[in-house]
Amino acid sequence: MQRSLIAEAPAGERVRLQGFVENIRNKRTMAFLVLRDSTGRIQLTVEKEKYPEVAAAVDQLTIESVITAEGTIVENDYVKLGGREMLPDMIKVESIAEPLPISKDAAIDSRLDYRWIDLRSDKNLLIYQAQTVMVNAMRQFLLDRRFIEIHTPKLIGAASESGSEVFELKYFDRKAYLSQSPQFYKQMAMAAGFDRIFEVGPVFRAEKSYTNKHATEFSGFDIEMSYIDSFRDVMQIEAELLTAALSAVKESCGEKIKELYGLDVVVPTLPFPEMKLQDVYKELEERYGYTVEDSEKNDLTTDAEHLCAKLSMDKFGHEFLFVTDYGPEKRAFYHMRDENGNPLGYDLIWRGTEITTGAQREHRYEQLRKQADEKGLGKDVQFYMEFFRYGCPPHGGFGLGIDRLTMLLLGLSIKETEFLFRGPNRIEP
Amino acid sequence: MQRSLIAEAPAGERVRLQGFVENIRNKRTMAFLVLRDSTGRIQLTVEKEKYPEVAAAVDQLTIESVITAEGTIVENDYVKLGGREMLPDMIKVESIAEPLPISKDAAIDSRLDYRWIDLRSDKNLLIYQAQTVMVNAMRQFLLDRRFIEIHTPKLIGAASESGSEVFELKYFDRKAYLSQSPQFYKQMAMAAGFDRIFEVGPVFRAEKSYTNKHATEFSGFDIEMSYIDSFRDVMQIEAELLTAALSAVKESCGEKIKELYGLDVVVPTLPFPEMKLQDVYKELEERYGYTVEDSEKNDLTTDAEHLCAKLSMDKFGHEFLFVTDYGPEKRAFYHMRDENGNPLGYDLIWRGTEITTGAQREHRYEQLRKQADEKGLGKDVQFYMEFFRYGCPPHGGFGLGIDRLTMLLLGLSIKETEFLFRGPNRIEP
Repeated sequence: MQRSLIAEAPAGERVRLQGFVENIRNKRTMAFLVLRDSTGRIQLTVEKEKYPEVAAAVDQLTIESVITAEGTIVENDYVKLGGREMLPDMIKVESIAEPLPISKDAAIDSRLDYRWIDLRSDKNLLIYQAQTVMVNAMRQFLLDRRFIEIHTPKLIGAASESGSEVFELKYFDRKAYLSQSPQFYKQMAMAAGFDRIFEVGPVFRAEKSYTNKHATEFSGFDIEMSYIDSFRDVMQIEAELLTAALSAVKESCGEKIKELYGLDVVVPTLPFPEMKLQDVYKELEERYGYTVEDSEKNDLTTDAEHLCAKLSMDKFGHEFLFVTDYGPEKRAFYHMRDENGNPLGYDLIWRGTEITTGAQREHRYEQLRKQADEKGLGKDVQFYMEFFRYGCPPHGGFGLGIDRLTMLLLGLSIKETEFLFRGPNRIEP
Repeated sequence: MQRSLIAEAPAGERVRLQGFVENIRNKRTMAFLVLRDSTGRIQLTVEKEKYPEVAAAVDQLTIESVITAEGTIVENDYVKLGGREMLPDMIKVESIAEPLPISKDAAIDSRLDYRWIDLRSDKNLLIYQAQTVMVNAMRQFLLDRRFIEIHTPKLIGAASESGSEVFELKYFDRKAYLSQSPQFYKQMAMAAGFDRIFEVGPVFRAEKSYTNKHATEFSGFDIEMSYIDSFRDVMQIEAELLTAALSAVKESCGEKIKELYGLDVVVPTLPFPEMKLQDVYKELEERYGYTVEDSEKNDLTTDAEHLCAKLSMDKFGHEFLFVTDYGPEKRAFYHMRDENGNPLGYDLIWRGTEITTGAQREHRYEQLRKQADEKGLGKDVQFYMEFFRYGCPPHGGFGLGIDRLTMLLLGLSIKETEFLFRGPNRIEP
């Protein structure tokens, strides 16, 4: 007999349901179970005298045990749970649960110790259902525009961009490192003539950060595209991509997110608003009295980043804000610069958190060499420099953290959002 | 002006083309370039006296330089390359190529040193175009069947299944390891009540293998599903998945694969044929005189695996062959076994190479504990054993190597198929 899903099981028919036993009331002649699967809950009402084998199975059950139950679903207005119940004539015990080691309202770190139990909630399941829809919409958006999906190596031979934050490992008789970003390799694809690529894959950061948005491993969504005219082409495709993603999430899970998280999924309007970094500081001061030292104004401070949520809503009625014209000292050496030395890139802020750095890249070997030298980068980027010696199209791109996007979508911390969070003190289970 | 793609640029109109200069014939009054982009090639015919600035740009050009060219495309039966040419009135040099350090027919290891140049061929681009279509079709097949996409950590706290083949790294003040498979975590998702999940992500193997199909890092495609009745449910969904994938590849790239690789993409028929391991050995001996020691017959030898290509075609007219009933000593401890101790799983062979191991998993804690103890697995699997103590549905799944699938599709080696191959002696570029 085929399994039916609780949400879809038709009344009046004999069906097979399978799931976790969420509640047990075992009385003298009757037993009432609440069965949960990934689509919903239903009451199983056991007539113990009529079905002694079912009654015997029920006697073994503990909370969160897993069963297969067969029987008929009937409408019953007295049943609170959806006005219907199943009358099982067969129950098979698939797995008996020991007493649960954590409660639903335990502190996050205890919940992470038993993440697989913690994940058994509608709210937590929805994280991954919504993320699945979001990421798939992003991929389809790109595939419709001739992007190729690639998988670049995470094991790399040189410590790349910033050696201090990289995990080192023993690779047979030499050292290797874990990739902090597919940046260099997605640019390699441009030098290979791939035109447009994207990659979804893990990113590793050996940072001792203990914020609610940093992790030592997370899932990156990276794109790179050739023959752009300027970094504004990158901004435009990113805005369209996120609009498509949020539109798909709203359509598929918008109601559920409202119900379980009390949050609206807002499909943004195009184009996204943009401001120069210096203008952001000016308006933050004028509107909210926020001031910082001039020396800090070549980058967005964490407080300013948070305030951008309010600024963007107040000024543009928009959740997103592109910020441009950062100082060159705060941007990677591979960002192209204009004739005044200003980087041709941007950050994208959503709900007060930076979600992307994007830019046109410097594809001219001599200029790139100069910019690398200025940052004091030596032989670690030599292999990367080679990509630009034998012909390379002008190109640009950006990277997003999937977990961070999902976190902002649902108003969570990164610990709650990652399937299994990884931080300086957390590498288990 | 918007870029046009060479394959799609209309004749009779002024267009902008962008790409690599594949060939240069620079004569006294005329110059002829071959421009290549990811969609095709076109001749650019430069009237040097009429356009002195274009002529000056052409004088700078070297093979594989990148240009933007604007001009009109005209039909011209005398032009071998597609019977048309562009008459550029503007050429902008985007990037000048130095003399190429490798030739197209260099040995594979030299080509890998300059992979981004090696990838600039129609055949190599097609690898990733076909793989993109294949993997996307696999994902869509699963999303249509309520699978959730997850991203499990690659940084793990215990060396898991087989400590000898795992990369170790320094994780702040302790040790960590790189995941050899998402196996344990995809099963954790089952214990979390996720019903059905898939993951696409890197897999790391610290093996000193130098075959044409092994790599130290590759892209895995893993699925796991709850409430199966037996491992045959897993076999069925895998056969359907691969059929959908190959069907999409044939439709989208079948002709191109035939043209560039001389290979047919064969959409398999359902169900895939299956044989017990012992019957495979019996038939290999009867049909082809292939014999091995009885002691080796609890697993498929490499030679037997290759011969399965022939056996499956001769006996069933099919490229795929499921092999079941392996010996328990050769299967992972987490495979469920029948009442005689035989593992309830399978391998799938395609074109003579194993592409999958699949199985129903042992979800009953006591039985799993026993099987782990038999294999002498101690505290390294303790964290995993915990997943089964608090209720867990019956479940099963399989894993595929994406690079290996692509390799078999196109008749290549793994070195040629991975975007950037990683092996014991190869971690650059």
